[in-house]
Amino acid sequence: MMKLDFEEALLRIRESRPLVHHITNYVTACDCANVVLGLGGSPVMADSPEEVVEMVSMASALVLNLGTLSRDRLEAMLRAGKEANRKGIPVLLDPVGAGATVFRSQAAKSLLEQITFAFIRGNESEIRSLLGLAGGPRGVDTRDSFTEPSTELAAKLARTYATTVGVTGAVDIVSDGRKTYRVRNGHPMLTTITGTGCMTTSLIGTFLGAHVSPLKSGLLGISLMAISGELTAESLTPEQGTGHFHSHLMDFLSRSVANDLRERLHLEEATNHD
Amino acid sequence: MMKLDFEEALLRIRESRPLVHHITNYVTACDCANVVLGLGGSPVMADSPEEVVEMVSMASALVLNLGTLSRDRLEAMLRAGKEANRKGIPVLLDPVGAGATVFRSQAAKSLLEQITFAFIRGNESEIRSLLGLAGGPRGVDTRDSFTEPSTELAAKLARTYATTVGVTGAVDIVSDGRKTYRVRNGHPMLTTITGTGCMTTSLIGTFLGAHVSPLKSGLLGISLMAISGELTAESLTPEQGTGHFHSHLMDFLSRSVANDLRERLHLEEATNHD
Amino acid sequence: MMKLDFEEALLRIRESRPLVHHITNYVTACDCANVVLGLGGSPVMADSPEEVVEMVSMASALVLNLGTLSRDRLEAMLRAGKEANRKGIPVLLDPVGAGATVFRSQAAKSLLEQITFAFIRGNESEIRSLLGLAGGPRGVDTRDSFTEPSTELAAKLARTYATTVGVTGAVDIVSDGRKTYRVRNGHPMLTTITGTGCMTTSLIGTFLGAHVSPLKSGLLGISLMAISGELTAESLTPEQGTGHFHSHLMDFLSRSVANDLRERLHLEEATNHD
Repeated sequence: MMKLDFEEALLRIRESRPLVHHITNYVTACDCANVVLGLGGSPVMADSPEEVVEMVSMASALVLNLGTLSRDRLEAMLRAGKEANRKGIPVLLDPVGAGATVFRSQAAKSLLEQITFAFIRGNESEIRSLLGLAGGPRGVDTRDSFTEPSTELAAKLARTYATTVGVTGAVDIVSDGRKTYRVRNGHPMLTTITGTGCMTTSLIGTFLGAHVSPLKSGLLGISLMAISGELTAESLTPEQGTGHFHSHLMDFLSRSVANDLRERLHLEEATNHD
Repeated sequence: MMKLDFEEALLRIRESRPLVHHITNYVTACDCANVVLGLGGSPVMADSPEEVVEMVSMASALVLNLGTLSRDRLEAMLRAGKEANRKGIPVLLDPVGAGATVFRSQAAKSLLEQITFAFIRGNESEIRSLLGLAGGPRGVDTRDSFTEPSTELAAKLARTYATTVGVTGAVDIVSDGRKTYRVRNGHPMLTTITGTGCMTTSLIGTFLGAHVSPLKSGLLGISLMAISGELTAESLTPEQGTGHFHSHLMDFLSRSVANDLRERLHLEEATNHD
Repeated sequence: MMKLDFEEALLRIRESRPLVHHITNYVTACDCANVVLGLGGSPVMADSPEEVVEMVSMASALVLNLGTLSRDRLEAMLRAGKEANRKGIPVLLDPVGAGATVFRSQAAKSLLEQITFAFIRGNESEIRSLLGLAGGPRGVDTRDSFTEPSTELAAKLARTYATTVGVTGAVDIVSDGRKTYRVRNGHPMLTTITGTGCMTTSLIGTFLGAHVSPLKSGLLGISLMAISGELTAESLTPEQGTGHFHSHLMDFLSRSVANDLRERLHLEEATNHD
């Protein structure tokens, strides 16, 4: 069984302070930067095609998030992703809204064809879309996908692109195509503010940037967000809504206590595919 | 007299979960997404000319906000707005800074000429500018317009473009050109954080996306922001400033209690123009 | 010895409500707008080359922030900066990430060659890069530079470009090339959220927009952020992390109490260079 050592992984981040380069959307960029800082990493948001090759060369991980995709941002993602591959820097894909429009689906396809990803995280409809399956998303939030995703979906995408995949929903799945895990944590309130999906990808990127394996990075980042969501929801008074949910969540993410995480974690191995 | 049924309108949003497509500025996009989520709607921010026609086809409402206008965003607004008109999807205009520069004024003019709007919300100087009147804005916040706007202004713009208009200020006005209402709610602290105007337009768009009439959507969205501003200001301790004002406001907006809203509402019919 | 009259400077802002035009990044734009509003100024974020010349003509100060630089934003900065110079409107430079990529370094160089700046604020590695010295930044946060910067560095840049310079770090330096000051305030938590550097530049811009001298504007803006950081850190309970640090910081910045600032201020004159 997978053993997750939160303490060691968090320490590794604090010691190496990985620089996590994001080419991302302008809706959740501030929150993504803050969760990387909260863990002890160093975020940089830079998306100009003129500079991303040079910027990514200094980075420990690269996050490509399709949130507010434009032609220029896509060009920057392709350039930076290829350079990261050349340099052995792990690249993550957050295919926000893949399947919603031809532009996003084709962008995701181009990226998957030209870049090797260390990790892909999305909700069920986004992951289905990357596999060419029906059932695209409505919008870019995760509200409509707060159901239990299929483990086979994650494993299939992982095998197809020789990567590790996280599918987040009511239950979260992480698979590298051979080993597949379920994280039975989280809280529905995580779907009532924007950006918790994007932030999860940034958390995974921060672990990857500190040289944690893709499978462990995925499980750490996803369970950290899920458990922080539980702790946050429980900490709210009846008068508090999404405003305090947001600030308490950032508190928990920046004060991650390995003990709490270990005690709360509901991790199970789903299947062994080969 | 207009009767506003907050309970029914909020329920309608929760049941239909309208997808509200925004082509908007990057300063307040995160807050706008969060207020749509807070009401129970589903926001999508997408502004690439390549994909907006397809994206808006899935939407229940389209919000065009001129906040950080660029040539590309304007092109995207024109494409998406025309498609929304073809499909009968309500389109809202938030003419941020109209009158401040020729670029914004001409952009607003192009949009008004080529797209039929279900709703237009601005402060007095922005609305004056759309009518070609003098008295343009200083900047894009609403601070300088926290005075009581003229009801005739709202009615005139509504008649000119066969739309419904909201003018926000110390008193808020909503008019469809025949019926005109004043909402005597709100609090000056609403002008001490950025985005309360943009968020109000997003709230109105969420009601419109749930098939509430333009007049009622305007009154609901505007009074929801105004009353939440009152409740928020009253909830602060003397040590708390704009940081807590922001998070408490998001709390109130996401926990809208129909009873509180009904009791607080100061709505009056201003004039009957025909 | 320099005497900083917080009370008078804050009053001046509240009376004149300076419009502070920002051409800035999309990560911290919302926070920057909110700190300008918090002081009583009026922010406008507009970066389209089509409109910045007209927009800046109405402004009291112009902030150029290289955070998420693009070719278009650089073009807008050059146009707006030149117009501001023609009109005598003070221009500030926040050279985020200068030295990290050739694109940013050359952009900073072009701006310094073509525009006269009233103020430049950066961390030590950014300021070194503007002087053509080695030791460029890792990323765009200030975490890696929370050390005491050299006073000579600030003075040298100030003399080179006949401007006033602020270098922020564990100790903050402000110099106009003749007089150089150290502000021994601040708290390491200021480096755990994104945007405190950008916000400091926006605060300085708001004082400059209210016709406070560059040297005093720099000392006021920098000490306001530093002391607010101390007060914020002290106000947190052990359970609170970066989420509450952010909202408390905005509280303190918007409720600046001249008495607290005066009592806390640790200002010393460093050297008299001529």
